[in-house]
Amino acid sequence: MALTLLKISCPDRVGLLARLTSFVAYHGGNLLEVNQFTDPLNKWFFARLAIDSASLALDPAALRKAFTPLGSDLEGEWTIRETRQKMRVVLMVSKLDHCLADLLWRWRSGELPMAIPLVISNHEELRSVVEREGIPFAFVPVTAGTKASAFEKMECLFREVEADLVVLARYMQIFPATLCERWHGKVINIHHSFLPSFAGANPYKRAYERGVKLIGATCHYATADLDAGPIIDQDVVRVEHFHTPEDMLRLGRDCERMALARGVRYHVEDRVLIHGNRSIVFRD
Amino acid sequence: MALTLLKISCPDRVGLLARLTSFVAYHGGNLLEVNQFTDPLNKWFFARLAIDSASLALDPAALRKAFTPLGSDLEGEWTIRETRQKMRVVLMVSKLDHCLADLLWRWRSGELPMAIPLVISNHEELRSVVEREGIPFAFVPVTAGTKASAFEKMECLFREVEADLVVLARYMQIFPATLCERWHGKVINIHHSFLPSFAGANPYKRAYERGVKLIGATCHYATADLDAGPIIDQDVVRVEHFHTPEDMLRLGRDCERMALARGVRYHVEDRVLIHGNRSIVFRD
Amino acid sequence: MALTLLKISCPDRVGLLARLTSFVAYHGGNLLEVNQFTDPLNKWFFARLAIDSASLALDPAALRKAFTPLGSDLEGEWTIRETRQKMRVVLMVSKLDHCLADLLWRWRSGELPMAIPLVISNHEELRSVVEREGIPFAFVPVTAGTKASAFEKMECLFREVEADLVVLARYMQIFPATLCERWHGKVINIHHSFLPSFAGANPYKRAYERGVKLIGATCHYATADLDAGPIIDQDVVRVEHFHTPEDMLRLGRDCERMALARGVRYHVEDRVLIHGNRSIVFRD
Amino acid sequence: MALTLLKISCPDRVGLLARLTSFVAYHGGNLLEVNQFTDPLNKWFFARLAIDSASLALDPAALRKAFTPLGSDLEGEWTIRETRQKMRVVLMVSKLDHCLADLLWRWRSGELPMAIPLVISNHEELRSVVEREGIPFAFVPVTAGTKASAFEKMECLFREVEADLVVLARYMQIFPATLCERWHGKVINIHHSFLPSFAGANPYKRAYERGVKLIGATCHYATADLDAGPIIDQDVVRVEHFHTPEDMLRLGRDCERMALARGVRYHVEDRVLIHGNRSIVFRD
Repeated sequence: MALTLLKISCPDRVGLLARLTSFVAYHGGNLLEVNQFTDPLNKWFFARLAIDSASLALDPAALRKAFTPLGSDLEGEWTIRETRQKMRVVLMVSKLDHCLADLLWRWRSGELPMAIPLVISNHEELRSVVEREGIPFAFVPVTAGTKASAFEKMECLFREVEADLVVLARYMQIFPATLCERWHGKVINIHHSFLPSFAGANPYKRAYERGVKLIGATCHYATADLDAGPIIDQDVVRVEHFHTPEDMLRLGRDCERMALARGVRYHVEDRVLIHGNRSIVFRD
Repeated sequence: MALTLLKISCPDRVGLLARLTSFVAYHGGNLLEVNQFTDPLNKWFFARLAIDSASLALDPAALRKAFTPLGSDLEGEWTIRETRQKMRVVLMVSKLDHCLADLLWRWRSGELPMAIPLVISNHEELRSVVEREGIPFAFVPVTAGTKASAFEKMECLFREVEADLVVLARYMQIFPATLCERWHGKVINIHHSFLPSFAGANPYKRAYERGVKLIGATCHYATADLDAGPIIDQDVVRVEHFHTPEDMLRLGRDCERMALARGVRYHVEDRVLIHGNRSIVFRD
Repeated sequence: MALTLLKISCPDRVGLLARLTSFVAYHGGNLLEVNQFTDPLNKWFFARLAIDSASLALDPAALRKAFTPLGSDLEGEWTIRETRQKMRVVLMVSKLDHCLADLLWRWRSGELPMAIPLVISNHEELRSVVEREGIPFAFVPVTAGTKASAFEKMECLFREVEADLVVLARYMQIFPATLCERWHGKVINIHHSFLPSFAGANPYKRAYERGVKLIGATCHYATADLDAGPIIDQDVVRVEHFHTPEDMLRLGRDCERMALARGVRYHVEDRVLIHGNRSIVFRD
Repeated sequence: MALTLLKISCPDRVGLLARLTSFVAYHGGNLLEVNQFTDPLNKWFFARLAIDSASLALDPAALRKAFTPLGSDLEGEWTIRETRQKMRVVLMVSKLDHCLADLLWRWRSGELPMAIPLVISNHEELRSVVEREGIPFAFVPVTAGTKASAFEKMECLFREVEADLVVLARYMQIFPATLCERWHGKVINIHHSFLPSFAGANPYKRAYERGVKLIGATCHYATADLDAGPIIDQDVVRVEHFHTPEDMLRLGRDCERMALARGVRYHVEDRVLIHGNRSIVFRD
C-alpha cells in the first residue's frame, strides 16, 4: 500500500497533534500509523504520520503546498514524502563486504525500500559483487595527498545521482568535517563497537584487551566529531574469555549487519528525526 | 507528574484521532504521549492518550461525563483514569515466592504504581513475608471438595477490597471458567513456559525432554481456556545441554519475574487493550 | 592452525577423561580446547578434544587406528577428523533465498569452514545466484507422483559428491522417513518457528493469530518425525501488536539465518553430539 | 550432591590435563564437569574440575596435601574447596536496596550457595531489611575526615567474620587502593553502566545525553584503578528516545541485579579465574 509520510519536529504547544491530524482529516487522509513524542526536557514535539495515499485528495506536491502555512506557523522542520518515490542511497565501501552483501540482499529482495544508484569504493576489490547486481561501481582512490580532491569528486557523484542518503558500509576513510556538515543527517555510518566504548580504531582488539563480556556495533549519523554523531541503533553479542580478537571480528560482523540494516531501514522509511545529538527513532 | 489517561478501542474510520485530540485540546489538555494503532486486518482502532492533568480544565469525573457522547458515537470501549488513583491489585500465591518477592519489592520502592490491599494464598507458608510489609494476608485453602466455595469466597474478597486487578503470581490452582469470564481482562497469570510451547503442567521438565535451547515465561490474561488467553509479554533465556530441569527452574525464575513485572506494569499504567485473543500493548 | 578433533560419546565411568587425555599426551598432542559433559540422568559421557595437529606424532588415519582399541573398550561412538579436510555440505533450497545467500556469503568469506560441492533445488529460480559462485546447481523437480524417484535421485547425488552433511535451507519438501534414517544426524533443517510452538505449516501466520510477543527459528536435525528432531540452536526476536504476518516474515528471516548459520558451524566444526532426541552442543 | 572443586591456572605445557585428571582418577574421583581453557596468546592454562566428593578416597584437607607437589611442579595458582563449606560473603550497601534485596532473596531461597555473616553500610536506612532476615548489620559511617579509619574498621570486620568475598551492592564509596590490593580478586562491584562506557559518576545521565540505544551494567572485581578491574559479567537493555534518565534508572536496576547475581554466583561456585585484567569465567 502506498503511504504518504508526514514527519515534523517543532516547539511543543497545546493542540499540536489535533492541528496535524485535523489537517490530514480535512484532506480526506486515513491515518494508518501515528507516532508522536514530546521531549519533556526540551519541550520539543516530534511526530510521524503515515497516511493511506489512496485516501488523500491531493498528490504529494499539492499536499506539501497545502501544509506549508501550517508548517511555518508551527516553526517546524518537516517533510512530506510518498513511499512510491524511493530514497536514493549511495553505498560506500572499502574491502570488507559483509555489510555491503547484506544491504544488497535486502535491497534485491525488496526488504529495504530504496534505490541504489551507485556504490563508491576506494578499492577495486568489490567491483564484481556490485556490478553483478546491475549497480554502477565508482572507484575513487583516496591517498594522503589526494584526499581533498577525492572527496570533492565523491560529493559531485552524490549530486549527480541525486543521492538522498550516503551509507558508509565499513568505508575505512574519515569523512571531511565540512562534508559531514553539508550532508548533516544524510550520512549513516556503522561503527564496530558499542559506542561510546572504543570509539576510533581497532575496537575489537581493545575490547579483547579490556576483557569485556559483550561486544557490539553502533549505527549513527556521521558528524564532524568522529564516532560521536546521533545514534540510530545498536546491537550487542555476548563474548567469553575464549573468544580471540578474530572471533570477535566474526561475531561482530553479525551485529554490524543487523544494526546497519535496521538503521538504514528506519531512515529510508522516514522513521528518524534528529534533535541535537540525539535521535528520535519511531521503530517498527 | 499526574496524568490523565484516555484509553479507547473502536471501529476505525477517517478522522478518529483528530476528533480525540481535538476533544483533549478543547479542554485545554496538553498531550504528553500518544499511542495509536489501527489493526489493518480487522479495521479496528486503538489509542492511549496521556494528558498532563494540570493542564485540564475538568477533573476526571467531569471529563468522563464530557467524553461520553463522543465515546458512544464512536461505539468505543473506553476508560479515563487519573494516575493519582492507583489501581488496586490483589496478589495470589501458593508456596513459591520468587514472583511475590519481586512484585513486593517493586511496589515498596514505588516502581510499580499500584496499591496491594490483599494477598491471598491456598497455603500459609508465605504469610510472614507478606505481613511484614504491612499487607493483609488471607489464607483460603482449596481442596477438591471445597473448590467452588473457596473461589466464591475469594471473589467476595476481590469485591470487598475493590480490586481492579488480580495477579496470579505462581498461584497453582486453576481459576474456574465462570470467574475468568466475570473478571475478563482483570486476571493476569504468569506461565512458566514460552507459550504456546508447553502449556499445562511441568513445562520445564518437558522443555528438558524436548531438548530446546531457549526456555521462557509468558504473562497473559487468564481465560476459561487454560494458558490460552491474550499474551501481554514474554521473555526467554538460553539453556544448554548441561542444564538440568532444576537449572531450568532457576533460570526460568528470572524470566518469570521479568515478564510478570512488565505485564503488571503495562496493565496498571493502562497500556494494554484486549481485542479478541490478542493484546495491544503500548510499551514504554 | 590445523586441528585434529576427537569427538566421543560413551557410557560414563571413572577415569574416562584421564584415559582420553593420556592417549593424546602419549602421542605428543597439545590440547587446545577440551569440552566434556556427563549427563547425570543417563550416566553418559560426551567429549570433544581439539588437538594442535602439528604437535601430533601421527597423521589422522594412523591416529584413528591407534585409538580404535581404546574406543572399543569404552563402547564409544567416536570420530577423529582433521580440519584441513573440510566437510562437504550439500545445500537444498526451493524459492526463498535468504538462508542460501547467507550461507553462501559465510562460505565465500571463509567464515564457515566447509566445501559446497552442490546445491539442489526443486525449482529453477535460484540457479543463477548459485552458479555465479561457481557452485554446481541441480534441478530436481518433486511432484506428488515423482516424489519417491526424486528423492532416490537426490540421495544418489549426495553420494556422488560424497556429502558429509545436507542442509535444508528453507527447502519446502518433507524428506522421506527412510532417507532421514539413513542420513541420521547428517541432515540439518531450519524451521521458521520457535519449536515446539507452531511445528508444521504456516508458523508465522499461526504466531500472529496466537498473539505471541516473541517469534523465532529452530535449527534441528531432520528425523522421520516432522519438526521433532534434535535441536541444535534457536533464536528469537520480539514482535509487537503492530507486526503483521508479513512483518514477521521479515523479522523471522534474520532469526532463521542466524540460527541456521550457527547450527551449520557447530556441525562442521564437530561441536555437536546427538543422544536420543537431545543434542550436546559444545558452543564457542 | 557435594562437590570438590579443583581450580588451577598455570603456564601451559603438553599433558597438563592428563596429569590433573589422572591425579583425580588415582584418588577415585569421578569427574562431573571439567572446564579447561588455554589462552593461545599468553600460553596460559586454566581449569576447573568438579569431582563427586562421595567418590573421593580423601577429604578436602588430605586432597590439598596430596595435590601440593603436583601444584608446585606446575607452578600453578590453585584451590581445592568442598561445596559443603560455603563461601562467607559480606555485603556492602548505601541507601539503594535493589541489589541487596535481590541477593538476600537468592540467598534465602538457596539459589546462591553462600553464607552472609554481615552486611555493612555507611547509612542506617537498610538496617531493618537486613536484620529481619536474621543477618547482623554494621553501620560504619564514612566522611571525608574519617575515611581511612572507617575502612580500617571495615577491614577488621571482614577478618572477624572470616569473609571470603566482599560484594559492593551499590555501595557508593570508593574503596582505598591498598584495600583493593590486599583483597585482590575478593571484592566484587556492580557498576551501573556498560563499561568501559560511562565509567565514574552518573552513568545513566551521561548515557541519556549521549543518546545511546542500549544501557547496561557491569559486574567486575574492584581494583585500585576505578571501574577498570577484571569484568565478570555484563548485561544490557534496549532504551529508546522516550526514556528519561529516570526511566533508565528503572530499566538499569534489572540489569544491575542480574549481572551482579550472576557474577556472585560464578565466584562462589569457583567458576572465575583472574589473569591480568581479564577474567576466565566457566559459566554454567
